[in-house]
Amino acid sequence: MADALEQLKTRMADLGQLFQLGMLLSWDQRTQMPPAGARHRGEHMAFIQRLAHDTLVDPEVGRLLDDLEPRMASLDPDGFDYGLIRMTRKAYDKEVDVPAELRSEMARAASEGNAVWLKAKAESDFQLFLPALERNIETRHKYVEALAPTGEKYDVLLDDFEPEMKTEDVTRIFAEIRDELVPLIAELREREIDDSFLEGDYPVDRQIELLQDVIDTFGHRPDSWRIDPTEHPFAASAGRDDIRITTHWYPNNLDSLFSTMHEYGHGLYQHQLPQEAESLPVGGPASLGIHESQSRMWENLVGRSLPFWRFYYPRLQQRFPEMLGGVDLDRFHAAINKSQPSLIRIEADEVTYGMHVILRFELEQDIINGRVELKDLPEIWNQKMHDYLGVDVPNDARGVLQDMHWSTGLIGYFSTYLLGTVMSVQIWEKMQEDVGDLDALMERGEFTPLREWLGEHIHAQGRKYPPQELMEKAVGSGIDAKPYLAYLKKKYGAAVAA
Amino acid sequence: MADALEQLKTRMADLGQLFQLGMLLSWDQRTQMPPAGARHRGEHMAFIQRLAHDTLVDPEVGRLLDDLEPRMASLDPDGFDYGLIRMTRKAYDKEVDVPAELRSEMARAASEGNAVWLKAKAESDFQLFLPALERNIETRHKYVEALAPTGEKYDVLLDDFEPEMKTEDVTRIFAEIRDELVPLIAELREREIDDSFLEGDYPVDRQIELLQDVIDTFGHRPDSWRIDPTEHPFAASAGRDDIRITTHWYPNNLDSLFSTMHEYGHGLYQHQLPQEAESLPVGGPASLGIHESQSRMWENLVGRSLPFWRFYYPRLQQRFPEMLGGVDLDRFHAAINKSQPSLIRIEADEVTYGMHVILRFELEQDIINGRVELKDLPEIWNQKMHDYLGVDVPNDARGVLQDMHWSTGLIGYFSTYLLGTVMSVQIWEKMQEDVGDLDALMERGEFTPLREWLGEHIHAQGRKYPPQELMEKAVGSGIDAKPYLAYLKKKYGAAVAA
Repeated sequence: MADALEQLKTRMADLGQLFQLGMLLSWDQRTQMPPAGARHRGEHMAFIQRLAHDTLVDPEVGRLLDDLEPRMASLDPDGFDYGLIRMTRKAYDKEVDVPAELRSEMARAASEGNAVWLKAKAESDFQLFLPALERNIETRHKYVEALAPTGEKYDVLLDDFEPEMKTEDVTRIFAEIRDELVPLIAELREREIDDSFLEGDYPVDRQIELLQDVIDTFGHRPDSWRIDPTEHPFAASAGRDDIRITTHWYPNNLDSLFSTMHEYGHGLYQHQLPQEAESLPVGGPASLGIHESQSRMWENLVGRSLPFWRFYYPRLQQRFPEMLGGVDLDRFHAAINKSQPSLIRIEADEVTYGMHVILRFELEQDIINGRVELKDLPEIWNQKMHDYLGVDVPNDARGVLQDMHWSTGLIGYFSTYLLGTVMSVQIWEKMQEDVGDLDALMERGEFTPLREWLGEHIHAQGRKYPPQELMEKAVGSGIDAKPYLAYLKKKYGAAVAA
Repeated sequence: MADALEQLKTRMADLGQLFQLGMLLSWDQRTQMPPAGARHRGEHMAFIQRLAHDTLVDPEVGRLLDDLEPRMASLDPDGFDYGLIRMTRKAYDKEVDVPAELRSEMARAASEGNAVWLKAKAESDFQLFLPALERNIETRHKYVEALAPTGEKYDVLLDDFEPEMKTEDVTRIFAEIRDELVPLIAELREREIDDSFLEGDYPVDRQIELLQDVIDTFGHRPDSWRIDPTEHPFAASAGRDDIRITTHWYPNNLDSLFSTMHEYGHGLYQHQLPQEAESLPVGGPASLGIHESQSRMWENLVGRSLPFWRFYYPRLQQRFPEMLGGVDLDRFHAAINKSQPSLIRIEADEVTYGMHVILRFELEQDIINGRVELKDLPEIWNQKMHDYLGVDVPNDARGVLQDMHWSTGLIGYFSTYLLGTVMSVQIWEKMQEDVGDLDALMERGEFTPLREWLGEHIHAQGRKYPPQELMEKAVGSGIDAKPYLAYLKKKYGAAVAA
């Protein structure tokens, strides 16, 4: 009879395999699968989800955890073994209250909901989407009910994406951000910045070469990474040495550049996860918020910084001389940092981005607490977009239907985009303290020290700690909006001058 | 408590899912995966194989089968329920004797063996390959031992690919073929046929359009199929509506054309499998031999026939006017049917192809019965190639290392290539009886009647019957080499005249 810890590892390694398979299937579905394959894929995903559920809630897992409980005091609390037991205990206690049939129902509703959403978005028809949305939200209500929380219902959902984060903490952080953003947005919308040259003739074949060169510059192992085109960019991984980022190139702008930097950040995290725990869930990423801190960092703190472009702009100009040959660095840098309220979250600039997330966070709480009727969502959405960003939504495709999350029942996910953005600045500042002058490094195109610091302090920690404990260890404090707000004010104060 | 049959179906549907996932992972590995991902993929494949083993040999499956045994008399013997119970009984009884650790060992040896083979083939270094080969063959010896057959050891392996086929039957069929092929090959090698125009400038972009047009012509649902480039062409499927064929295009010849027709045949089989049993193993293909009958049929009986080219040759000429504009149909048809002994099985013509398979079939029996030492394989191989085909093997890459099968322990697989080829002619002739003048249909480019006949009589039968029983039902007799030999003699008699 193997030792209880070894037995737990063997079982949890199966769960790790299932996560990797699920990610690979999802990547395949969004980049390769013939469209008619969707009906099979729904079954595959439900199957994997069922196996994962069964693996986790096997009564033997409960017994092993009970056996191991008294032994935790003798384990190193900073080791993966300790982390594994702690996270498995939590996951087990939560999942054991979820009926297997509900998990299947959630998977089927998600699969169907996504297909309906694609169609509804294409036709900008919320009515078409409404029944699928209702079904997905219904599964979430059942899920919350099954877990019977004593506090906020929404906490249960948030915890799936950002472990141990509480609704009231997010509310407080977002209120702090909102108070600062609203006047800043108002101030910036008056600024005149010419970014007309970012629209025009950007041939796709040259963009593809550019994206490859950018990730070569940031640094990666070519035999472990690939880039594919997709409708909505994302990153996936079937193991540390199988990293797949995706992007969407448009022939008339450079959006693919920033989305690729973003996905590079996700990919690097997956690539630098701890080798010693790579087959286990505890070797996975800490949370979606921490994940997003990495993508937003490479996209914004590196990718929209002046020092990086001091280094890289000549290369970009060489690639697109017709469009950029006559545009100097300062004009280019001002253009890629132009702040202007807009309709679509994923196209939003650094300043207005937060308001898109806050809007969804508020709506989600209203939904889960039954304070809105789903059929009224478009109207409420449009009103909020007007109130928060001063923009008028022309149709639901560019409004409430723009994101896929709700179509698959993902409630509680959106907040992590802004939480991650906030944490990215805290992590950046600590890295600056440890590594030295990051601006100087970027100006020389030296990214190895950044990759290594992130690898050591964030990536290779895996999921040993809940995210806020990881932040304490890595940067010395839990999430704090102040550095982020100071960064925005400093940067966008400077942008005025440009 | 669900009915025993429903319970069995639920469990076997899991097995069906695992097969589909395995095929998808394998497709991904060979077309998409970053090379360094191989080490993760080995784990994924071993994981899936373990789950499949555990699912099949669960004692509850044995109990359900025992419950169902007395009920079989009341079931329609031509129904999928009956077929499911019959095939599950057989698979269970076989797999239950295989230790789970041996299955894992086989999967790991295969994964490692394939990687070593790739390297050894690239360097044409058999010594490098030998230890991995030994390990794989060792797992096969253990497998045979675990199953403790009363008759031929090789039967156990053959049965995995061609259920219920016996070594002595294959020996007899192959002897019959060999006796006819040897003089025919000798006769044909004296013929002078000009096929020089098949080598030259065939731009890859135009080949890609050609291949798409060919499968459009044969007939397929575009939203369910895709074609990708790969090193060694194959077909895979993650469900009836997710069909993935692969090919290898060379800029200086048209080989991709025939390999795509071949894979089309495999793809069509998967696409037309029975919808009513699509989630179950009994809804899968009958055997590798039956599968190969479909691919060889589209490649040779359609794709190298004069009637097809009467219809299609003008289109091909239009696509490659520089190479084929001045070559008339008869010269082209003679060239694509030129018979000439050569080194590589997958490049062999219809006549010499069989000898490549017979050589491997003989060697495999020597290996399994311990009549050869693995270290001597290159020498024996080269001698046989000289004796059977009169060719001298210049190096092991083009000799014993050319095929991947043995590197993953696949012993018993090769015979199905020739068995399938033999059956393809029997099926073709029965189809001709039922459908009418196939030549006339091909000359008009009408393939729907062929697809439908194959769908009804072969594909939609799934795995209800063992392959020879399926042949009895579909064409009125078990495997018989005579129609095949008559076809070759007739065709290659005619080719002389050209």
